Amino acid sequence: MRHYEVTKSMNRITGGVCAVRGVRAFGIRELAEREDGKESKNGLAVITGSGESAGVFTKNRIIAPPLTLTRAHLEARHRLGAVIVNSGCANAFTGKRGLSDAGRMAELAAERLNLEKDAVGVASTGVVGVSLDLKWIESQIDSVVAGLSATPEGSSAAAQAIMTTDTRPKEFAVELGSGVRIGGIAKGSGMIAPDMATMLAFIYTDADLPHETLETCLKQAVDTSFNMIVVDGDTSTNDMVLLTATAEVGAPEYDEEEFQEGLDCVCTELAKMIARDGEGAEKLIEVRVTGAETNEDAEVAAKAIVRSPLVKTAVHGCDPNWGRVVVAIGYSGAAVDPDLISLALSGVRVVDCGTVLDFAGEDVDMSGEDVGIDVDLGLGAGEATAWGCDLTCEYVRINAEYTS
Amino acid sequence: MRHYEVTKSMNRITGGVCAVRGVRAFGIRELAEREDGKESKNGLAVITGSGESAGVFTKNRIIAPPLTLTRAHLEARHRLGAVIVNSGCANAFTGKRGLSDAGRMAELAAERLNLEKDAVGVASTGVVGVSLDLKWIESQIDSVVAGLSATPEGSSAAAQAIMTTDTRPKEFAVELGSGVRIGGIAKGSGMIAPDMATMLAFIYTDADLPHETLETCLKQAVDTSFNMIVVDGDTSTNDMVLLTATAEVGAPEYDEEEFQEGLDCVCTELAKMIARDGEGAEKLIEVRVTGAETNEDAEVAAKAIVRSPLVKTAVHGCDPNWGRVVVAIGYSGAAVDPDLISLALSGVRVVDCGTVLDFAGEDVDMSGEDVGIDVDLGLGAGEATAWGCDLTCEYVRINAEYTS
Repeated sequence: MRHYEVTKSMNRITGGVCAVRGVRAFGIRELAEREDGKESKNGLAVITGSGESAGVFTKNRIIAPPLTLTRAHLEARHRLGAVIVNSGCANAFTGKRGLSDAGRMAELAAERLNLEKDAVGVASTGVVGVSLDLKWIESQIDSVVAGLSATPEGSSAAAQAIMTTDTRPKEFAVELGSGVRIGGIAKGSGMIAPDMATMLAFIYTDADLPHETLETCLKQAVDTSFNMIVVDGDTSTNDMVLLTATAEVGAPEYDEEEFQEGLDCVCTELAKMIARDGEGAEKLIEVRVTGAETNEDAEVAAKAIVRSPLVKTAVHGCDPNWGRVVVAIGYSGAAVDPDLISLALSGVRVVDCGTVLDFAGEDVDMSGEDVGIDVDLGLGAGEATAWGCDLTCEYVRINAEYTS
Repeated sequence: MRHYEVTKSMNRITGGVCAVRGVRAFGIRELAEREDGKESKNGLAVITGSGESAGVFTKNRIIAPPLTLTRAHLEARHRLGAVIVNSGCANAFTGKRGLSDAGRMAELAAERLNLEKDAVGVASTGVVGVSLDLKWIESQIDSVVAGLSATPEGSSAAAQAIMTTDTRPKEFAVELGSGVRIGGIAKGSGMIAPDMATMLAFIYTDADLPHETLETCLKQAVDTSFNMIVVDGDTSTNDMVLLTATAEVGAPEYDEEEFQEGLDCVCTELAKMIARDGEGAEKLIEVRVTGAETNEDAEVAAKAIVRSPLVKTAVHGCDPNWGRVVVAIGYSGAAVDPDLISLALSGVRVVDCGTVLDFAGEDVDMSGEDVGIDVDLGLGAGEATAWGCDLTCEYVRINAEYTS
């Protein structure tokens, strides 16, 4: 155990969750037969790493059993030793059997890892309303536990195992100036908003922090990252972000600010990966709203823009249709004065204090993978950034054929 | 002038707005060159019919100049003699020039119809942020006024002239048992929710009713019809519904209930036409929620379901993915107990008091043009119905290419 020095520098490092000292991970993913006889992708991942923990859970009023269980475990101990995650079935809207099945998943991991059952977090993602295929999970758990490793490959295997319609695994890690590391893996998200499919993120740090601090920091980080790709209340039944501090680096000359900055960074980068990998998406849309009366106003305006199907399709068509952005601002609920709005698309200012500037469509290059929409409401100091993706035919195709 | 007798019967009749005594209408629609040199569809319609009037306007905080003008006219006189409507340009986010242009439209109609300027309602629909092509409107106004007629053809011409991406004109009329008629025309709506393009409806009745009654009745009718295809606050800058009573049938043995029923019917049928003709839509989705704690809860749940892109794509794919319906209920904000939810798709019950019934995908026939989703929350007596449409590749194509 050593103390770390606090500096403001931060470096991106490889290794995902396994960049963090004290963390091992593994996962497998394969085609399997569902109970209804159809084929589907199933995955199983386990991550180990013991310490004080915090969680953020869906605001959906229908909460899937794995979340009910994990929240209870966290409330009882404020510590986790491992998480077990399956993909392919959300174990949501599955009643009492669902809770019992989630408990069985926790047991399967606990038995093999020599942990108490309530030291295990459980997460599920996939089709709603179908019961878990516990037999498949039981048949795979030994291989997954046997594969656990502290290598980048271990993290990648886990990140791949939790994917559903994701096309790429999502991992990110940083090393803070103090030497503390924070790393995470996540899965999308079919669509980003307003009906995103389940979003899961598992984040670890080797800092030595009490669960109260972890809770505060995680809440703040989620609010400016994962929650900015999700419209409030439009969360799935299974959304969950967990954070565990392994304390391998020891108690710090405590600087919550540095830790917060690092955690914000990891959460934001994972959130952007989710947005970029939205179902059928070809572009990442970053909407930055400044000059709002309040930060809350900036948030609702940024989210309204990024969730607008008309904005999303315009971006898809590389069409600088700023009018749709203005319409979304108008119905967002944010305080607004049309004569003070300024607006830039892909860095080109098209509206200046309510006046539409003379620009040719060709002047605004929206052909890249990243499209920025910058709005200044001209009213105050409130600001926020939201992320989303374009809306494509591929999105329609994927979702018209998901279960059948 | 004659008094009418009140009965409960109501018959659908032809003729749209022109079914109503005292109403004339006409419109033209043609390809024209926009100021930016591109071609676009432009339309111009005029409807005449004098009497006490009421209006309902967008809740968007950015309000287009024609609405500002029309609202002021209504507040000043509570009477209209005519409306003039153009399609192709929304005259929204056009600043002072926009208001002056809207005023000029009112003048153009007033001069030719021998009305005061403030007896003319003005509406616009089309691209946001582009100024009106007044020259084109000036060049067409005489032909439109010359064409005004009290025939079904007059109503149809007006209904066609106000279309933008609509594929079909929208007209509906009823005759009440008392002999009073109520008729209207409307235009969609690209998408229904959450970013519907401008929705306009012009409704006439030959009843003799004061503007206070018209206002009350119109508000109530809009709440259960047009507002149930629009999520609150997600209205465009230009949405407007106007109602004028020509009083040709004279003062009734007054029965507000019968009038309300007729007005509800006309508004609901027009709203359903708009939903069915959503951009790229192939199916009308009708979501009926019963058993909610309150009517408000039923409304938010019904709207959440019908606006969900995942539900819309599932319907498009004829996929009985009831899990997506449950997820939408869960995030809608309505009070909900998962163990009490019952759910039917296209008339086939798939969930009964929280228990998923054993059904084969083939049992649920969603292949028709009308798909019903019936939800019973099992909590109380609140109920509501919302309408929407499926989400298709055609929607993406239309909106990725709208202005450019």
